[in-house]
Amino acid sequence: MEKFFNWRKKNRKYIEIAQEIRSLIEKTTEVNGGHLASNLGIVELSIALHEVFDSGGDRIIFDVSHQCYAHKILTDRRDRFSTLRQTDGISGFTSPGESFHDVFFCGHAGTALSSALGIAMARDRLHQDYHVIAVIGDASLTNGLTLEALNNIGETRLIVVLNDNGYAIAKNVGFIAHYLSGIMRSNIYNRLKDFFKHGLRKLPFGHPLIHLLSRIKRGIKAFLLPSSFFECYGLRYIGPIDGHNVTDLVDALNFCKREKHPILLHVKTKKGYGNVRAENCPEEAHGIGISRQNSDGYSQIFGRTLCDLAEKDSRIVAITAAMARGTGLNFFQQKFPERFFDVGIAEGHAITFAAGLAKAGLLPVCAIYSTFLQRAFDNIFHDIALQNLPIIIAIDRAGLCPQDGPTHHGLFDIAFLKSVPNLIIMQPKDGNELSKMLEAAIHFHAPCCIRYPRSVRVSTDSHCTAVELGKGEIIQWGKDICLIALGDKVSVAMAVIEKLPHYSFTIINARFVKPLDEILIITCARDHKKIYILEDHVQAGGFGSAVAEFFTQRNIAIDLHIFAWPNCFIPHASNNEDLEKMFHLTADDIAVSIANDFEGGK
Amino acid sequence: MEKFFNWRKKNRKYIEIAQEIRSLIEKTTEVNGGHLASNLGIVELSIALHEVFDSGGDRIIFDVSHQCYAHKILTDRRDRFSTLRQTDGISGFTSPGESFHDVFFCGHAGTALSSALGIAMARDRLHQDYHVIAVIGDASLTNGLTLEALNNIGETRLIVVLNDNGYAIAKNVGFIAHYLSGIMRSNIYNRLKDFFKHGLRKLPFGHPLIHLLSRIKRGIKAFLLPSSFFECYGLRYIGPIDGHNVTDLVDALNFCKREKHPILLHVKTKKGYGNVRAENCPEEAHGIGISRQNSDGYSQIFGRTLCDLAEKDSRIVAITAAMARGTGLNFFQQKFPERFFDVGIAEGHAITFAAGLAKAGLLPVCAIYSTFLQRAFDNIFHDIALQNLPIIIAIDRAGLCPQDGPTHHGLFDIAFLKSVPNLIIMQPKDGNELSKMLEAAIHFHAPCCIRYPRSVRVSTDSHCTAVELGKGEIIQWGKDICLIALGDKVSVAMAVIEKLPHYSFTIINARFVKPLDEILIITCARDHKKIYILEDHVQAGGFGSAVAEFFTQRNIAIDLHIFAWPNCFIPHASNNEDLEKMFHLTADDIAVSIANDFEGGK
Repeated sequence: MEKFFNWRKKNRKYIEIAQEIRSLIEKTTEVNGGHLASNLGIVELSIALHEVFDSGGDRIIFDVSHQCYAHKILTDRRDRFSTLRQTDGISGFTSPGESFHDVFFCGHAGTALSSALGIAMARDRLHQDYHVIAVIGDASLTNGLTLEALNNIGETRLIVVLNDNGYAIAKNVGFIAHYLSGIMRSNIYNRLKDFFKHGLRKLPFGHPLIHLLSRIKRGIKAFLLPSSFFECYGLRYIGPIDGHNVTDLVDALNFCKREKHPILLHVKTKKGYGNVRAENCPEEAHGIGISRQNSDGYSQIFGRTLCDLAEKDSRIVAITAAMARGTGLNFFQQKFPERFFDVGIAEGHAITFAAGLAKAGLLPVCAIYSTFLQRAFDNIFHDIALQNLPIIIAIDRAGLCPQDGPTHHGLFDIAFLKSVPNLIIMQPKDGNELSKMLEAAIHFHAPCCIRYPRSVRVSTDSHCTAVELGKGEIIQWGKDICLIALGDKVSVAMAVIEKLPHYSFTIINARFVKPLDEILIITCARDHKKIYILEDHVQAGGFGSAVAEFFTQRNIAIDLHIFAWPNCFIPHASNNEDLEKMFHLTADDIAVSIANDFEGGK
Repeated sequence: MEKFFNWRKKNRKYIEIAQEIRSLIEKTTEVNGGHLASNLGIVELSIALHEVFDSGGDRIIFDVSHQCYAHKILTDRRDRFSTLRQTDGISGFTSPGESFHDVFFCGHAGTALSSALGIAMARDRLHQDYHVIAVIGDASLTNGLTLEALNNIGETRLIVVLNDNGYAIAKNVGFIAHYLSGIMRSNIYNRLKDFFKHGLRKLPFGHPLIHLLSRIKRGIKAFLLPSSFFECYGLRYIGPIDGHNVTDLVDALNFCKREKHPILLHVKTKKGYGNVRAENCPEEAHGIGISRQNSDGYSQIFGRTLCDLAEKDSRIVAITAAMARGTGLNFFQQKFPERFFDVGIAEGHAITFAAGLAKAGLLPVCAIYSTFLQRAFDNIFHDIALQNLPIIIAIDRAGLCPQDGPTHHGLFDIAFLKSVPNLIIMQPKDGNELSKMLEAAIHFHAPCCIRYPRSVRVSTDSHCTAVELGKGEIIQWGKDICLIALGDKVSVAMAVIEKLPHYSFTIINARFVKPLDEILIITCARDHKKIYILEDHVQAGGFGSAVAEFFTQRNIAIDLHIFAWPNCFIPHASNNEDLEKMFHLTADDIAVSIANDFEGGK
């Protein structure tokens, strides 16, 4: 394995290597965007991991994996690092297709411990011998999947590195976070720690006396501090140690490497380390878009509108799963701190908790990214829809997240939601309509999803008629071709008809995926030779599929064509346009396709 | 609130009331089936809960809620209890539509803490004053949702009653179970406990000295035993106490009632208490079907076939989420204990863990009920399909679970799975074909789902051609009407054509939902005036929907009709037949509908 510019050969100091990596990360994210703060915080830990373990042979599994930049640079992607998150460039997450150093393609938090445990158990069963290291953030401990895995580790040989920066994406929440920070805060403990530190420093790592001293230290710690969370789960716990001292990290990891039982190394790091701006505002620097946002996107419009509504209706409360800023709920958090709940990376709990709030008389609004909402599917089904409770789910990032790629595109939510009874599903054509939908949803007294894509800038000055349950909007009525568009695709439909001035077009803003505006759709079928659906979703199980189902049920024979994403994982790219071109879904492509089709069908 | 035959008025002894309830439960489940062991175990606790709290005003939330029988008898459903799990009778789970004493309709484990926390926080926010009590089983502590909720309790006033019977549905797994039983097993602790017990007994419950003694006791406990799991989460812990002594339970619950902080009462109960058979074989007596199984159902065929395959292929390992017996994996567990993993009620972890096993070279087979698989949707998407790993998911109970009702019917899995890229989805027409599919799936080297319904007896003697990826089976070829049936519906299709001897029928056994047998379906469309789909799934997003989507994509105009369940929650009933009659889906109904339709369409 060729390591980063043959660091050991050149006998370079860790600190120099770290600086070089850090400046490469800063330079690249400045141009390409990406996760800055979390990657700056894990540079030294990445160096130490690659110093101690043989990546490829040993399996290093990064949770969420948006903190894999140093790992990528250290393994075999230093030269390609400038293509980070660009079309045909390297992914912002670990990606096995890119390098054998990346074990899983992952972008959802909390999976590493569970999958690492599978690898470790398979290793033992196959009588192989390599190390399995799960690198998890403290925020992952708020996630049920991590905790389920913790409960199943038993005696399996596995190294867990807890990269504790005290932040999830926002400031960490919940009792585990409180507990972790408690370890560091205790005064008596800190004084005793210093005493032991001096004693332990003089001994080489792994010396038998260290064991004894450590035991005494742990005994005192257990006596003085909240009892050990990890030891409840049967893991041996060591730490906390400084995550920005490579030498200490290397020693500690070597110690873990010799352990035959599950062991957790608690590493304290600073998010954004080495960069003043990122250190001070780690939440802001968590994910950096290329262009700074000057105007409001859907998330901001959602956040502000919700504040307005909440001022008039005291029942409204808001819930986020560690995404206050990303979802625009930071406005609500500032304005109504006592009505705002950040439950951590716990999408399932966010929804079931909302069910409890609604049952007891409040009106909860949960804002969750489309792809993360997949984790709360059963909660939506079992705890909201079956109880028919009035809860609003704001599905943010329903559409492309181009630079993040397949783990973040929100192209599947209609498919898993539209079969759930009692649910209402809608999508606004612009920011103005989002506000109206949110206001309308409050009066539906039913579980209600509003999906909308990530957007840097969104039009809000359109004329917007009142939003009525299950009713679409006729933008214009023609006689040849009918375009039924969902959400942002209304503007694409407008662009398409400009390119085809010789036809008379009907344009429908669908608004509702469920319930469908059946009367309007039947009328469209009756008055047009051909219907085209435009939507931002995969074809299978999307809005177009709902329309096709409806025509089948009603035995209506109509020429229907769906412009949607193909049924595959869509890769990452520099921007939406690149992906639309790649999959022939630009307004130009659609216009050409309609023209050919309609000429042929005439 | 009228309580159970005015127990307090008549001044009856708890033990008599408990006996009466117990015999009513035994008598009813003997006739109607149902959850025997768990309900027998919680009789005294239910009496104590209703003695101390004012159900309706106070909110008692039962996790999973299949242990609500005593609660139902004690509140307002004693007279209707004989209709348990029958058509139009009372539900086997708590059901708000039935009584205001039931807070949520729930049948999936792990939701109670999360929803109870929502209610408690809403109560505080609305400045109301009532008690919120979540009654959870020890098995729920293996579930991520419970743990996510634990992490969010903070300072909220909430009473958690941990009904610890040492069993999930099967014997409990994981480190938390080990930890809980550790509390009871320690010898020194038990001797000290006796000492304190004598001291504490002489004082009235709540006496200040008890606090002091309890503190000392807890101090010693923390010193001698694994450190307290619940105190890591900030809950005050009391217990463990005997769950079959109502007087003690009443005292302890009254103590909890006065507490202003979150508190957990650890109650030890015996599953099946008071019934020799149920006490000895609690797993067998967990859920009792009405007729004992003499022949093999799908689950048993699956379990036995997997054993045969595993004998030849050492890579095969099996995973269950606390359902070894229900899924037929108990055979595998007995035969290959070292290749069998029960992860607890942790469906998400089961799948992500399987991803790790597969990545490291094994061939994992996960057997999970259709409705519970909803909890692993993101894991299937993110950890299996995106990585394109060869894992077989055996989806048991894909179809009706008539007596359990809406929380258990498996009628939605195709809808959430069919849009997931890379997944293969199939369903066998009988037991023989299930075996062939399982064998074939091993060679597909791709993520693969096989769905099949609950069944007491299943035919296995049919002729079965080899299962080929993406290929359906032509049962017979006719010229008038084409029936494409999925799974068990093939036999319904056979029954339908016997009722309509004047038509010439084609019958297709679809086998694959994904990939569709496109060539066969196109041929069917070309050669027939009308196609009917028969499937055991809701209409929205089911197999028929996939066919409709396909015709739309290919621009094929064909008269298509889908016989599937309507898009609503299907209630419970005594048996499948009652539900089929209720929703006009018997072979008779379908034959009449086809005859009318076809005459009209001629």
